[in-house]
Amino acid sequence: MKKTLNCLVLCFLLLAPALLQAEDCLECHREKTPGAVRIWEKSAHARAGIGCSACHGNDHGRIDAGKASVDMEICGTCHEAALKEHRGSRHGMGLHSGWGCTRNLPQRDKSECRFCHQEGSTRPVTQVECSRFLKQSSEMAELGCNRCHQVESSCASCHSSHATDLAIVRDPGVCAKCHMGPDHPQWEMWQTSVHGTLRASAGPEMGPSCQDCHMAKGSHDVSVGLTMTPGGALYPEAEIPGRRAAMLSICTECHSERFATDDLAAADAVRIQSQALVKKAEAIIWDLADRGLLDPMPTERPPHPLRGEVLVTDSQMLYEETSHIERLFFKMKKYDLAKTVKGAYHQNPAYTHWYGNAELKMDLIDIEAEATRLRERNPSPAAVVAPMGVEDESIEKALEVLKNKFDRGALSAEDYAREKGDLLERFSAGGQ
Amino acid sequence: MKKTLNCLVLCFLLLAPALLQAEDCLECHREKTPGAVRIWEKSAHARAGIGCSACHGNDHGRIDAGKASVDMEICGTCHEAALKEHRGSRHGMGLHSGWGCTRNLPQRDKSECRFCHQEGSTRPVTQVECSRFLKQSSEMAELGCNRCHQVESSCASCHSSHATDLAIVRDPGVCAKCHMGPDHPQWEMWQTSVHGTLRASAGPEMGPSCQDCHMAKGSHDVSVGLTMTPGGALYPEAEIPGRRAAMLSICTECHSERFATDDLAAADAVRIQSQALVKKAEAIIWDLADRGLLDPMPTERPPHPLRGEVLVTDSQMLYEETSHIERLFFKMKKYDLAKTVKGAYHQNPAYTHWYGNAELKMDLIDIEAEATRLRERNPSPAAVVAPMGVEDESIEKALEVLKNKFDRGALSAEDYAREKGDLLERFSAGGQ
Amino acid sequence: MKKTLNCLVLCFLLLAPALLQAEDCLECHREKTPGAVRIWEKSAHARAGIGCSACHGNDHGRIDAGKASVDMEICGTCHEAALKEHRGSRHGMGLHSGWGCTRNLPQRDKSECRFCHQEGSTRPVTQVECSRFLKQSSEMAELGCNRCHQVESSCASCHSSHATDLAIVRDPGVCAKCHMGPDHPQWEMWQTSVHGTLRASAGPEMGPSCQDCHMAKGSHDVSVGLTMTPGGALYPEAEIPGRRAAMLSICTECHSERFATDDLAAADAVRIQSQALVKKAEAIIWDLADRGLLDPMPTERPPHPLRGEVLVTDSQMLYEETSHIERLFFKMKKYDLAKTVKGAYHQNPAYTHWYGNAELKMDLIDIEAEATRLRERNPSPAAVVAPMGVEDESIEKALEVLKNKFDRGALSAEDYAREKGDLLERFSAGGQ
Repeated sequence: MKKTLNCLVLCFLLLAPALLQAEDCLECHREKTPGAVRIWEKSAHARAGIGCSACHGNDHGRIDAGKASVDMEICGTCHEAALKEHRGSRHGMGLHSGWGCTRNLPQRDKSECRFCHQEGSTRPVTQVECSRFLKQSSEMAELGCNRCHQVESSCASCHSSHATDLAIVRDPGVCAKCHMGPDHPQWEMWQTSVHGTLRASAGPEMGPSCQDCHMAKGSHDVSVGLTMTPGGALYPEAEIPGRRAAMLSICTECHSERFATDDLAAADAVRIQSQALVKKAEAIIWDLADRGLLDPMPTERPPHPLRGEVLVTDSQMLYEETSHIERLFFKMKKYDLAKTVKGAYHQNPAYTHWYGNAELKMDLIDIEAEATRLRERNPSPAAVVAPMGVEDESIEKALEVLKNKFDRGALSAEDYAREKGDLLERFSAGGQ
Repeated sequence: MKKTLNCLVLCFLLLAPALLQAEDCLECHREKTPGAVRIWEKSAHARAGIGCSACHGNDHGRIDAGKASVDMEICGTCHEAALKEHRGSRHGMGLHSGWGCTRNLPQRDKSECRFCHQEGSTRPVTQVECSRFLKQSSEMAELGCNRCHQVESSCASCHSSHATDLAIVRDPGVCAKCHMGPDHPQWEMWQTSVHGTLRASAGPEMGPSCQDCHMAKGSHDVSVGLTMTPGGALYPEAEIPGRRAAMLSICTECHSERFATDDLAAADAVRIQSQALVKKAEAIIWDLADRGLLDPMPTERPPHPLRGEVLVTDSQMLYEETSHIERLFFKMKKYDLAKTVKGAYHQNPAYTHWYGNAELKMDLIDIEAEATRLRERNPSPAAVVAPMGVEDESIEKALEVLKNKFDRGALSAEDYAREKGDLLERFSAGGQ
Repeated sequence: MKKTLNCLVLCFLLLAPALLQAEDCLECHREKTPGAVRIWEKSAHARAGIGCSACHGNDHGRIDAGKASVDMEICGTCHEAALKEHRGSRHGMGLHSGWGCTRNLPQRDKSECRFCHQEGSTRPVTQVECSRFLKQSSEMAELGCNRCHQVESSCASCHSSHATDLAIVRDPGVCAKCHMGPDHPQWEMWQTSVHGTLRASAGPEMGPSCQDCHMAKGSHDVSVGLTMTPGGALYPEAEIPGRRAAMLSICTECHSERFATDDLAAADAVRIQSQALVKKAEAIIWDLADRGLLDPMPTERPPHPLRGEVLVTDSQMLYEETSHIERLFFKMKKYDLAKTVKGAYHQNPAYTHWYGNAELKMDLIDIEAEATRLRERNPSPAAVVAPMGVEDESIEKALEVLKNKFDRGALSAEDYAREKGDLLERFSAGGQ
């Protein structure tokens, strides 16, 4: 009720001048941007008398300067519930995770600072910044990153500009634009899954779309029922049962509860098993770093934009200016893990197994082979050591490796003291 | 006639109680599995009065325990001809090649043993078991392997559950669910071939589907006209002309016999040339194994589940816990060879050449480079040898390599004796 | 007017006998090639009375020998404007760049020589020959190369044989057949771009096809508005503004000129940045070659079919029988550069960034790691040098590397003299 009122008030305030002006805009814009006018003319906005300036304003100087694109604050004046749901979902934080600080980007409106910072403050209100974004040129940031990571601020990301046709946003293609490619091919795996293929051959009643499961009943909260955060970790344990139940209530529209429960539980298990493979590879790389064997070491290359001259293998891992073994790990973690896990949750055996699981296991072979090469290439005999033992090491090297492990938190103070004691004792016993 | 009778008798026996019970099932299941009921209600089965228990039985305890899924024996009672054709085709052996022994899988019905074993016997009735399957967790086996390799036992693999709409099984999407991905992207190559693109733009009369060529006239024997076995070898020579003629009779629905014959013959040539590249790479790996240079050697890693501590490069080759060079070979043989050859037979130049042939040739470069690295890394001077000669080898090493070749059957007893004699003579002549 | 006359005259000359003969052909061909007849019967040609022999001729001996396929000279007799536009575009040179010399191909008509040579001469009229094509077997050349690179001579490449339905050539699928795959996935990137997805969900008015932008108003000149040549270089500077304006006139059908101008300018910048990464990798490889460190060196492998025993990294680069580091560079330049740049121009963020930019940067890591390995493996201490300095080199080696750079044109005579002088001075000063 309040919403309707708000909207009416705003429409009135905006439309009174806008309606007058629509004709003025159209006269020129039928020439200048005929497609935009054509699309608007067929829209629900046109039918409701919502003209150009209702959304773009009347200040043509601002429009000419490219500062009148419509952000979701404007849409949200009328579409209040949708905006609220959107903001509560992972789509509402796309910008934070994708943009990082935009201060170096040309042609960026200063008002964008508000997405990450308190008004008038340089202190970010969120911890999430993307190191990969920070390494891009402004053009790659624009065409490669922001075309998807504008989803936080722009309804047009999905609805497209000027159109209001719901067929657009109910088509899985609208999701495909971003949810595709090596890092999260959800569209590809859906398209060739039992769900996607049935939709194509037998219609929407037989085959659910992205929207049917992730935006059930038209909700704009795309995070409903998900147990993994956007970063791939689990939500807090207490939230999991409620989240799983929400997803199962959607699955059971078609499937028996037992079938759906078992299927998602199997995917959970695949996730845990796959993450363990990734952890194994990660441990190999950290051990090499402890021994100073990465090539180049983090101290010998441009610093990580958020962390400096240290090894980073978490969600802020880079794919550039690192070592070859880290780049192999990037593929493993960012691409192949995602394909396995998302393939399992989206019922696509080829992604789960061939594009996912098989690649993960081959990645591990590649990483182990590269680790062997790195260990063997070190000219200092002290470094040519069995990775997990101290058989051929000098006492100095062994103590240094141990200290590195302690420094990075892989050993507790207690374990460090004990292992150090053991080591000294073993060496003083005359043995290497 | 006999079939119709069988079916009628069975329908009568099953339907008498089933018809009574359908209403009972529906009352609850409209709540519990509304999708399943909705789909069934629109099916030919519903129209013919074939209710839930006709296929699932009346024992609700069994149903609750998840033991009442409908295997094809049940479908085959009525759909006899289809079942027979299916069983005679490669789809009828999907399970054998994909499953391996399921004894370690939780939630498996013991009755599945019958797929591979004589009643009451542990002796397999087929030689085919998949080592890759045996290495999987039960969850990966379920979501990654069996979702496709259930095709032997479940009509629903293609027809989907409860639906009888033939549009589902006449759409190439139904094949895509399994026939996609790095190991056999038939769907992707068809979709972008002249056949697939014409179907999309000009309709089924212009562009044949998977089914039009491989299940002509609705046959369930998908192996008609194929000259390669599922493992990629040729069928026995005597069968080839008949098989090729069967395929040509389909091609000539649209093409002249000369065109179709030449086209398939060119694809045959591409197959032979591509297999020769793979053989060349395989020989490099076996030579390294003979010299003890794989890293790790088969004796230094978990044994192959079917063969033990030996090198395996045939269709039972693994992609995990092997050496880096074997993993490169896995990609070459399992992915790139398949893309080249299947691309050629499916009229897709990009798969034939770029995804296929170009990758095969780059694989060979990669494998040769890794072989060089392996030869050079061996600390023993005896092993740093020209791979095909004995120039720098000690006599002991050279004799050992020769014996390894003989032991694995790469040399006949005669050739072994002669090469051994030559070697001893050369060394005793004072030469290296 | 003249065209219509030509066409009428030809039609008359051809059709007089052809019309008589159509019935004769059909009688047999309804049996022999029923599909071809079926398609023709529905075509505009059939409706206009243009029968089989109008295009294929009356000489059945020639037809049986497979020499009566219809090349575009025949189509062009009537479709004159289309042929002219086609010939002026990059499609008109597909054959030249793709085929190379066909003299070794079996089943090739000698008359094809005219595509590259003056009548009766062996001298090519074009410099463009494809070394990759020259390395293929005739069957791979046929199924892998010519299926696309026949576009110069065969209208059926796009229009398909016997059909005249314009729906076929207005569907992006017709482009997909060739414009797909690792080297130029324009179809894949369009399909999942905002343009392709809107076309699928909201129809052709909302989402432009390949044809809408690249064959505007039905033109057969597919090069309109492009600033890059088929080889990836820029057109001459003087042509660029006109070409860009032509493209913008198409974009502004829907977009504001400012938006479209900025978007294409950002893509230009991405192109330049990406090419710089490729140049960086290329310099590493040439430096290795100067130092004799490629494995194998061009002198130790089969000669390049156009250039001989030299390193080739330009558009004639091979993917076979080269060194591992060159093969890594082939992927970088031919696949990943294309994906980045074409992704940017086709509004696909996943191709621009993940399939493109991220791969380019990982390629560089891989190439640098392999370069390190190659430098370290050389047994001669003189070759184990810092790549850009002379710190550990002997004077002889340093002079040789300098001479190699000069010989391949990377140093001017002046720079060569100066660097040589510097080098001699530094060494004679007693320094390393």
